[in-house]
Amino acid sequence: MKLLIINGPNLNLLGKREPTIYGHSSFEDFFLQLKTKYSSIDFEYYQSNVEGELINKLHEVGFSYDGIIMNAGAYTHTSIGIADAIVGIKSPVIEVHISNIYTREEYRHISLMAKNCIGVITGLGLNSYRLAVEHFLSLN
Amino acid sequence: MKLLIINGPNLNLLGKREPTIYGHSSFEDFFLQLKTKYSSIDFEYYQSNVEGELINKLHEVGFSYDGIIMNAGAYTHTSIGIADAIVGIKSPVIEVHISNIYTREEYRHISLMAKNCIGVITGLGLNSYRLAVEHFLSLN
Amino acid sequence: MKLLIINGPNLNLLGKREPTIYGHSSFEDFFLQLKTKYSSIDFEYYQSNVEGELINKLHEVGFSYDGIIMNAGAYTHTSIGIADAIVGIKSPVIEVHISNIYTREEYRHISLMAKNCIGVITGLGLNSYRLAVEHFLSLN
Amino acid sequence: MKLLIINGPNLNLLGKREPTIYGHSSFEDFFLQLKTKYSSIDFEYYQSNVEGELINKLHEVGFSYDGIIMNAGAYTHTSIGIADAIVGIKSPVIEVHISNIYTREEYRHISLMAKNCIGVITGLGLNSYRLAVEHFLSLN
Amino acid sequence: MKLLIINGPNLNLLGKREPTIYGHSSFEDFFLQLKTKYSSIDFEYYQSNVEGELINKLHEVGFSYDGIIMNAGAYTHTSIGIADAIVGIKSPVIEVHISNIYTREEYRHISLMAKNCIGVITGLGLNSYRLAVEHFLSLN
Amino acid sequence: MKLLIINGPNLNLLGKREPTIYGHSSFEDFFLQLKTKYSSIDFEYYQSNVEGELINKLHEVGFSYDGIIMNAGAYTHTSIGIADAIVGIKSPVIEVHISNIYTREEYRHISLMAKNCIGVITGLGLNSYRLAVEHFLSLN
Amino acid sequence: MKLLIINGPNLNLLGKREPTIYGHSSFEDFFLQLKTKYSSIDFEYYQSNVEGELINKLHEVGFSYDGIIMNAGAYTHTSIGIADAIVGIKSPVIEVHISNIYTREEYRHISLMAKNCIGVITGLGLNSYRLAVEHFLSLN
Amino acid sequence: MKLLIINGPNLNLLGKREPTIYGHSSFEDFFLQLKTKYSSIDFEYYQSNVEGELINKLHEVGFSYDGIIMNAGAYTHTSIGIADAIVGIKSPVIEVHISNIYTREEYRHISLMAKNCIGVITGLGLNSYRLAVEHFLSLN
Amino acid sequence: MKLLIINGPNLNLLGKREPTIYGHSSFEDFFLQLKTKYSSIDFEYYQSNVEGELINKLHEVGFSYDGIIMNAGAYTHTSIGIADAIVGIKSPVIEVHISNIYTREEYRHISLMAKNCIGVITGLGLNSYRLAVEHFLSLN
Amino acid sequence: MKLLIINGPNLNLLGKREPTIYGHSSFEDFFLQLKTKYSSIDFEYYQSNVEGELINKLHEVGFSYDGIIMNAGAYTHTSIGIADAIVGIKSPVIEVHISNIYTREEYRHISLMAKNCIGVITGLGLNSYRLAVEHFLSLN
Amino acid sequence: MKLLIINGPNLNLLGKREPTIYGHSSFEDFFLQLKTKYSSIDFEYYQSNVEGELINKLHEVGFSYDGIIMNAGAYTHTSIGIADAIVGIKSPVIEVHISNIYTREEYRHISLMAKNCIGVITGLGLNSYRLAVEHFLSLN
Amino acid sequence: MKLLIINGPNLNLLGKREPTIYGHSSFEDFFLQLKTKYSSIDFEYYQSNVEGELINKLHEVGFSYDGIIMNAGAYTHTSIGIADAIVGIKSPVIEVHISNIYTREEYRHISLMAKNCIGVITGLGLNSYRLAVEHFLSLN
Repeated sequence: MKLLIINGPNLNLLGKREPTIYGHSSFEDFFLQLKTKYSSIDFEYYQSNVEGELINKLHEVGFSYDGIIMNAGAYTHTSIGIADAIVGIKSPVIEVHISNIYTREEYRHISLMAKNCIGVITGLGLNSYRLAVEHFLSLN
Repeated sequence: MKLLIINGPNLNLLGKREPTIYGHSSFEDFFLQLKTKYSSIDFEYYQSNVEGELINKLHEVGFSYDGIIMNAGAYTHTSIGIADAIVGIKSPVIEVHISNIYTREEYRHISLMAKNCIGVITGLGLNSYRLAVEHFLSLN
Repeated sequence: MKLLIINGPNLNLLGKREPTIYGHSSFEDFFLQLKTKYSSIDFEYYQSNVEGELINKLHEVGFSYDGIIMNAGAYTHTSIGIADAIVGIKSPVIEVHISNIYTREEYRHISLMAKNCIGVITGLGLNSYRLAVEHFLSLN
Repeated sequence: MKLLIINGPNLNLLGKREPTIYGHSSFEDFFLQLKTKYSSIDFEYYQSNVEGELINKLHEVGFSYDGIIMNAGAYTHTSIGIADAIVGIKSPVIEVHISNIYTREEYRHISLMAKNCIGVITGLGLNSYRLAVEHFLSLN
Repeated sequence: MKLLIINGPNLNLLGKREPTIYGHSSFEDFFLQLKTKYSSIDFEYYQSNVEGELINKLHEVGFSYDGIIMNAGAYTHTSIGIADAIVGIKSPVIEVHISNIYTREEYRHISLMAKNCIGVITGLGLNSYRLAVEHFLSLN
Repeated sequence: MKLLIINGPNLNLLGKREPTIYGHSSFEDFFLQLKTKYSSIDFEYYQSNVEGELINKLHEVGFSYDGIIMNAGAYTHTSIGIADAIVGIKSPVIEVHISNIYTREEYRHISLMAKNCIGVITGLGLNSYRLAVEHFLSLN
Repeated sequence: MKLLIINGPNLNLLGKREPTIYGHSSFEDFFLQLKTKYSSIDFEYYQSNVEGELINKLHEVGFSYDGIIMNAGAYTHTSIGIADAIVGIKSPVIEVHISNIYTREEYRHISLMAKNCIGVITGLGLNSYRLAVEHFLSLN
Repeated sequence: MKLLIINGPNLNLLGKREPTIYGHSSFEDFFLQLKTKYSSIDFEYYQSNVEGELINKLHEVGFSYDGIIMNAGAYTHTSIGIADAIVGIKSPVIEVHISNIYTREEYRHISLMAKNCIGVITGLGLNSYRLAVEHFLSLN
Repeated sequence: MKLLIINGPNLNLLGKREPTIYGHSSFEDFFLQLKTKYSSIDFEYYQSNVEGELINKLHEVGFSYDGIIMNAGAYTHTSIGIADAIVGIKSPVIEVHISNIYTREEYRHISLMAKNCIGVITGLGLNSYRLAVEHFLSLN
Repeated sequence: MKLLIINGPNLNLLGKREPTIYGHSSFEDFFLQLKTKYSSIDFEYYQSNVEGELINKLHEVGFSYDGIIMNAGAYTHTSIGIADAIVGIKSPVIEVHISNIYTREEYRHISLMAKNCIGVITGLGLNSYRLAVEHFLSLN
Repeated sequence: MKLLIINGPNLNLLGKREPTIYGHSSFEDFFLQLKTKYSSIDFEYYQSNVEGELINKLHEVGFSYDGIIMNAGAYTHTSIGIADAIVGIKSPVIEVHISNIYTREEYRHISLMAKNCIGVITGLGLNSYRLAVEHFLSLN
Repeated sequence: MKLLIINGPNLNLLGKREPTIYGHSSFEDFFLQLKTKYSSIDFEYYQSNVEGELINKLHEVGFSYDGIIMNAGAYTHTSIGIADAIVGIKSPVIEVHISNIYTREEYRHISLMAKNCIGVITGLGLNSYRLAVEHFLSLN
């Protein structure tokens, strides 16, 4: 089973940026734990701040991977292009968010990509990513 | 560990109502499987079509349970009263939805209670409930 | 042929409440006349001020009756739950209103349930109910 | 008793246009049946695709007829002029629609003329016209 | 000096329609008085309920008349076509209204043609037309 | 003089729920003080979390009591049914709120029932109820 | 016959301010011509940039004058207080504008006071004031 | 105890203006009664039609008085400046209205200053002012 | 191959009306050139300012022609009736505009008929019509 | 070089009002420093809480001064009259704000006068005024 | 003659992505045909999923090419930057779309760049590009 | 003291693009002057048309520089990602604009990043950058 985790803009700052909202650990630490815990899964991790590079990545793996877990960050709310890319590929995508986006600014309540994903997990911290993994496992 | 699962209006029709959206199995079948799988957890299940009765139930258990998993159905989008009740109690609540609400009518895209819950899991079928259980387990 | 007539909130006040809008006769008087006129039809009448009880009633009869005539009163404009229940059941529903809702407050111009009913009859007084009966008769 | 039935734009295509929505029979066939069934009523039928000609017709008969049954088609949603004409005349008007306008585009959910009519019958097929006739009969 | 007065839909009912708003005298009576009072002016009067015929009339006289006084009735609020015709012709147009449109429904507060006219006179009864004549006189 | 005080959803949690907004004393304590202070008045107190039960209560007492003091809680902002019930009964109603609803979420700034009440008292703590009592006294 | 002409903010700059919109002559010059032309009328002229002083003036003369011609300038679009004052007094008011407000910014298209005036004259230059005088004359 | 009562624009017309809404007695009469009834309180009364003068008054007394009762009239709905002044001073303010603003035009339903006051009393006639006095008394 | 070109309101003024937007040549001149250039095509040309006549024309040819090129002018933005007619007929329709409607008033940016056409060509002058002809040729 | 600094409503409270937002020093202190630092400039300072007096001041100096630095406070967001006055005068105006208005209530994000000023400086404390002085200096 | 064709995000998936909307052939195949058909034209083709790279390309060629044909995909609806770039360059741009964007989601109905292009061709499949070429040819 | 100046999309065209709005000199010329004038400051300059590269740059310098002066161009109005990046870093940011954005299209009036900056300077030409430098100097 091959899974890709994609993080969008500013998530490379995790652990440094707004720790009261996003926590203190870096995503790389968490990713190592995840690979250890689910050692049978073939994981890849990708982060970019560039909208078009995220689209490129979806195109690249979206016809061969078993699932994609995507936190598109700020692009969740503005990118029709990423939403289109999810429709254009074959791999199922789960949208995840670390923080509860409904407790923040109103423009973060709307996701342009959610309707093209199979589901959304929001607000459960880094555990949001792990539960998405669990869901892909349960599909097999 | 004590967990309550609450289902709101029309979810008693599960298995009968709109099976292309909600699937063919009844919630009771699923609940039995869940209790079997997580036998160490003390589960309760409650369903009502009456908004005020859902509020009453939240008041009743909301100062003693370790977590509440709530699918408020149509009241998700209209009930300020349920949203207020979640603020008023002590138990943490996870909002769940069986179907991907973002692929349906626009008025189902807005949740009045989400900002008062710790997180939201949407669109992963009955597995949405199980992942919420997993999250409560991970908090301990 | 079995038909249910359901009245929602405040319609129990008919004859007492705002007679310039709703007229002076009680709904019970009218219901007796209707049963007399269409004696071959098996009629039931139900009224409740509680949104969830109206949903319960729709569930209860909605898999066996030949038709439901529903004046949901104020819930017409706010209840996604009743609208969902109509989709969930098998019996066809006709929405009726005694007064012409388009001559009243703007929030009464919108019906959340209309799109799930087979039709709507508005503003023709208690005759709105009788014409709905006529329509169900014409379907056979 | 003299009744006028007015049909607005595109209803001359009935039977040819979008049969999944409007059915396969032409309005002329239906009109013959109606005259046969209610032989004591003096019926007139008028159709035009021109907004101003519909207004002219309302002026012409609106001070002498006992009732007007009007399906203004697309003009229902855009014509303040027809709505004004209904206020300006003496004959009572019932607005009818063949299809359930609430299941179609959102701009078809609003009727500018409804508030000036005595009532509205929507979605009951050609039977919508017949029930309007029934209502005018019941007024005498 | 040649002036055209154009009246739009339903204004042929003047004197009959809603007399509490529009008064009891017919427009023809008033037009005779106007011609008598301003005998040096070459007046024409035109009324139609058909939007396109009003456009045709504007085209016909709009390159030779000294002024046009237009009460477009309900089309004031909906017709981009009449607004375009006023731009397309050479004769200056004054928009007039008999009643004070700001005391009526909100959709009567907006005029699509006002920005293309040289001015607007509203609410002064039939005197609105006479004051427009006075203005054209004052331009010479 | 007979007065009813009605409290809507979540007000049974008073003293427990969000004490920084609503204070620490329960409503029952306050009600006892009120009865002691105004011993000549015949008071009744009713609380329910169910919208329809609040409507039922209004119907039950609304033709015999001298006044009703109602804090409809969250239903203030969503219930057309309660607003209709107030119109349907004879007893005058004063809407009260403990907290200043204008300092909270925007959806709490709108009251559907206010236009049917004789007045509104907002933000003066439990004293809001007492001032309403004072007003009913001053009417006699 | 006593008439007051009131000008609101910035109209004291007339002749200096934006001459392409408002022309080059000062209002005082025009006012002298007006008094000469209609020598039988007892005219008063008042200008202020202060909203409350305009309200004061309306109160002062509004129970004794035969008519008020008011160009409230920018306050036309924002002052509920002036609109209320017009309702509170007895003298009829005609709203006038020198420029065609419909060809300018959208927030100038809305008048809060128009519904309380007997009529509105817009866009006919300083002649707008004179036509208002003509209308008051025609009322006697 | 020192209390200031401030009335905004058009309230000097009380007793003359729109008596069906505001009653027939002048505010001065009422103020005398109030001073007699609560003789231990040191009252001041101020009225102005000028927004800025109301701000000046709030600044002048707002660091020494025990409470301010303010009916800002039309400025309630448009003045950010008054709302800011209330935040800037120390004295607590109660907003009052004589009429039930929720039964009037929609733009009167919104108060810009309410969120900065300790509470609001609406629709109880001149008694609204007296209840505000009662509340300030109860704070001591 | 049979093609109809339909022009809506004010397009008969082409060459006279607003030449900076629409150019100086009349449509008839252009139509002659087009017939010469594509001599194998059987062209018809129709223009009307009347909405209903445009609908009539669509009905008349819409079951036999190979294609329709329609510039509905101002009706593009307001006519649900023309949009319905396009759905009701069999011939494919291409919407064309001479000017770039996106550089003009905002209400010209929306086309009610576009969703029922096979495509839209905007802003390329009279060449817009010729390119539509080219497209119909390419379909064969 | 002659410069006027104008402050609008509530800015006379500077140093007393909301010090966490506006700081503790009075504007007069700051103004003295400014005059000392830029001794070659002829400065004037004016403050008023009255909208119309601010307009009067703009008229008074606006044809002779080299620049105006204006913090219109709350009137920034509501006064079309001040915005018009800026257009009407000759002196260039720079709009300044002490606090960052984009971090406060949404109605403070919109400036009606900004489009008539040459520029805007926001959020840099009292330094906002000094930078505006620097800009006027750099223009010479 | 030098022409650039630019394709935006996801158009590299053409032939793979949503073939019911976009067809089965790749853009490269089509581009070859186009070059063969119009062999006298010097064509360049560029595709990127990155908004900023599309802007860079416009800058690079926009001062020397005779025309640009641009399908900005999802960025059509969100990119002010691309719209600005089109204004900033000298080469004329025609906006094209393969599918009829008016039959898809509402947010695809709005183009931010259309007002800066000379025209738009929508919904005619890959032929949209060829007709744009034809238009550039006709300009010479 | 280390300061970064960042320019967003299309600002590399400065001097070439729309000179009536942005002036004729290139930004590089201006940057040289700035470095000469403030020789004690360690300046860096960065320009990109790619949203994600601007985010990358902010991350790169945002934990070590003393200040950032950012003109995000078109991304000012659409990029939540850049706004998030400003929150995530430590260096204070001043938003600047060369032109007065309030005199241009309405979508340029809204800045998503302004609330995260310490201030905004708009419309003062290239001097906007210099005044921002002055402000950073005044902080030390």
